[in-house]
Amino acid sequence: MSLLVVGTVAFDAIETPFGKTDKIVGGAATYAGLAASYFTKSINLVSVVGDDFPAETINLFHEKGINTKGLQIKEGEKTFFWSGKYHNDMNTRDTLITELNVLNTFDPIIPDELQGCEFLMLGNLMPQVQKTVIERLWKRPKLIVLDTMNFWMDVAMDSLLETLALVDVLTINDSEARQLSGEYSLVKAAQKILKMGPKYLIIKKGEHGALLFNEHQVFFAPALPLEDVFDPTGAGDTFAGGFIGHLAATKDISFDNLKRAIIFGSAMASFCVEKFGIERLVNLNQSEVNERVQEFIDLVQFDIILD
Amino acid sequence: MSLLVVGTVAFDAIETPFGKTDKIVGGAATYAGLAASYFTKSINLVSVVGDDFPAETINLFHEKGINTKGLQIKEGEKTFFWSGKYHNDMNTRDTLITELNVLNTFDPIIPDELQGCEFLMLGNLMPQVQKTVIERLWKRPKLIVLDTMNFWMDVAMDSLLETLALVDVLTINDSEARQLSGEYSLVKAAQKILKMGPKYLIIKKGEHGALLFNEHQVFFAPALPLEDVFDPTGAGDTFAGGFIGHLAATKDISFDNLKRAIIFGSAMASFCVEKFGIERLVNLNQSEVNERVQEFIDLVQFDIILD
Repeated sequence: MSLLVVGTVAFDAIETPFGKTDKIVGGAATYAGLAASYFTKSINLVSVVGDDFPAETINLFHEKGINTKGLQIKEGEKTFFWSGKYHNDMNTRDTLITELNVLNTFDPIIPDELQGCEFLMLGNLMPQVQKTVIERLWKRPKLIVLDTMNFWMDVAMDSLLETLALVDVLTINDSEARQLSGEYSLVKAAQKILKMGPKYLIIKKGEHGALLFNEHQVFFAPALPLEDVFDPTGAGDTFAGGFIGHLAATKDISFDNLKRAIIFGSAMASFCVEKFGIERLVNLNQSEVNERVQEFIDLVQFDIILD
Repeated sequence: MSLLVVGTVAFDAIETPFGKTDKIVGGAATYAGLAASYFTKSINLVSVVGDDFPAETINLFHEKGINTKGLQIKEGEKTFFWSGKYHNDMNTRDTLITELNVLNTFDPIIPDELQGCEFLMLGNLMPQVQKTVIERLWKRPKLIVLDTMNFWMDVAMDSLLETLALVDVLTINDSEARQLSGEYSLVKAAQKILKMGPKYLIIKKGEHGALLFNEHQVFFAPALPLEDVFDPTGAGDTFAGGFIGHLAATKDISFDNLKRAIIFGSAMASFCVEKFGIERLVNLNQSEVNERVQEFIDLVQFDIILD
């Protein structure tokens, strides 16, 4: 029982400069779980949906090795729905609709048979819910990764700080790192945030890559330069899923292996943005993943021998 | 007679969130020449100043191995002066004053004894002046690197395109690459720009690093995450100087060596921004440069062995 993924399973309606979708399947745990499934087949999902959620997607989870015993299906209720429109630069977006629906009352129940996970991915959720998950685990996982967003810094900072104190890795974007720390310099921001609890901080910079900090080291992973970013939705969750999926598969949480995990996460995210929603993520094969990782190696590899 | 650097030698007055300066020495050729001097001692400068330019700076050039036979000193005229103020994010700035002075009538005379250079760095100048330099060389250099800016795309695009057709490497920033190509995607922008003449395109992304493209390959070099960027003035020119300095020292223009050159350029640029103007660039020693390059290696190095 290796990896537990807790987060939203949702419907999204997305508009980008390349087109728009009706309601399609999305959600942080969906993206993270699917990305992780290319690395480990021992994945457990804890989330909630309404009875409008398609059975074929739940079957897809099973095909991918994602156990849905912890996925609550609420009869007579509707699945969380988000709709957004991306601007031309694809880096900014407007939220058009947020219908919390089943998320309003989400109680993250951990079935007994899902206890004992070694790796825990907490997708973006209300910080209090994330904290509850940690408290309900009988044994602390080897590594807890938490994703959050600026919204919780605006409305629930105290609760977020309490939750942060309990995790090992925090993943946020550059503007969130600045907001959380009050520092513009990402190096200074990282120093402050690492004092809040996490041993590792990953700052996601979208098309500009990602930075991994611990107290004494820093690692930078680029994003692959792509001809087109078709739909950025879920890229951060996919990154996190590939990251923790690699760690769960190797059970090695050394800094060197975290660096590798970031490259695998970046590779998965680079697939995610090539099509709408989860489309690209569901049909990959291992050789495509390896080829993409090789592109990352080629992108940054150089040999300098210093005197 | 290895490297010829043509560009401005100037006075700058700079205001950043960290402080402000009176008139200090700046200019593209100043930064590029000083950066290159840590790699090669066979550097020739072609530029123009007024009789207000300090003799001690010209002596400094000599100490650094920069030959100033091609530096015209115009009696009774004043040196080019630029003044600017950076915004809090340090990525944007307002130009407060531009006094072209001696630049108004700059005729880039190449003394006979400076003919035969193998490497030519054309700092940002009016494209017609850059083109004149190339036309005046008796023998085409092994590699011509050209820097330019959005201003020339606005007011002299035809002349810029004629000049671009003559060079090997173009260095511009991301917004300039978008403007020049009409493409938002940097990958597509690069494909278009490489059809305009240059065999290599370097897209400088400031704190987000730099991309090197040729027709079939791409390489990404990060910027070093710094606690503070004190003054970004001259960082691009310093990058270009370190880049071409390494190439001139090694006389190897393979893609692999261009990758190394970008790392050396990035390392020099990371010093440049630590203090106002050229202050940090004039007092470095070789072991500081090597240590900084090692930081770049550590920043991006990872080992993944694919099946």
